Amino acid sequence: MTSPAAPEPNAAFLDAIRFDGRGLVAAVAQQHDSGEVLMLAWMNREAAAETLRTGRVCYWSRSRGALWRKGETSGQEQRLVEMRLDCDGDALLLLVEQTGVACHTGRRTCFYRAARDGAAVEIAAPEADPAALYGQR
Amino acid sequence: MTSPAAPEPNAAFLDAIRFDGRGLVAAVAQQHDSGEVLMLAWMNREAAAETLRTGRVCYWSRSRGALWRKGETSGQEQRLVEMRLDCDGDALLLLVEQTGVACHTGRRTCFYRAARDGAAVEIAAPEADPAALYGQR
Repeated sequence: MTSPAAPEPNAAFLDAIRFDGRGLVAAVAQQHDSGEVLMLAWMNREAAAETLRTGRVCYWSRSRGALWRKGETSGQEQRLVEMRLDCDGDALLLLVEQTGVACHTGRRTCFYRAARDGAAVEIAAPEADPAALYGQR
Repeated sequence: MTSPAAPEPNAAFLDAIRFDGRGLVAAVAQQHDSGEVLMLAWMNREAAAETLRTGRVCYWSRSRGALWRKGETSGQEQRLVEMRLDCDGDALLLLVEQTGVACHTGRRTCFYRAARDGAAVEIAAPEADPAALYGQR
């Protein structure tokens, strides 16, 4: 005997997320052990569901209007250690194991500019060559 | 001799922020020494400018449509240690010294629910009584 319709995995968690008018929620990725904040991106319900199901982080690309499996092109993927939700349900914190670098510039984190003397000053250098990560584009 | 118009402090940094159609940018607050991610909120240019100028974190409250000087009511303020900007300029990382608790529920962090067995499970208890922080409302 099979059940008529399998319940959606993680439905209770996904139902607790308050997606915005675009169907999106902000997601902050943090390296689980060092605590380094790597990036902020967006998820729709499908991306969050896939991430929980597969354990590999999948965002929603607002520029491409498509699912964005982090690292699919560059190899710099994120393995999900834990997904957390904030008090009002409109932000996610992803504890991840980051392979290589998170930023498309080849830096470990996207937050590599700091306010210093009124200007945005680069405080981290690339660790990888974007051309090598993404091919000569 | 006085200069005709004083330049806006931090103008170069503020100009590097790409505010969205609502004039807002997402801001992630992280305890500077422990690395704990405390909350995600929003800033407009005025809030970011005030935060840089005063060293006390000021957000923009989307629900109240007003500047939100964190801790003004509760006393649980955030002192800015450093403000960072991401690669595409549409997210801020605030390294802060958090007084007491960041969350209005009395918890240290707003991200106190984790995806466990498909549901959102509370993984942190309140450290402060919200009624004491905000008065009996």
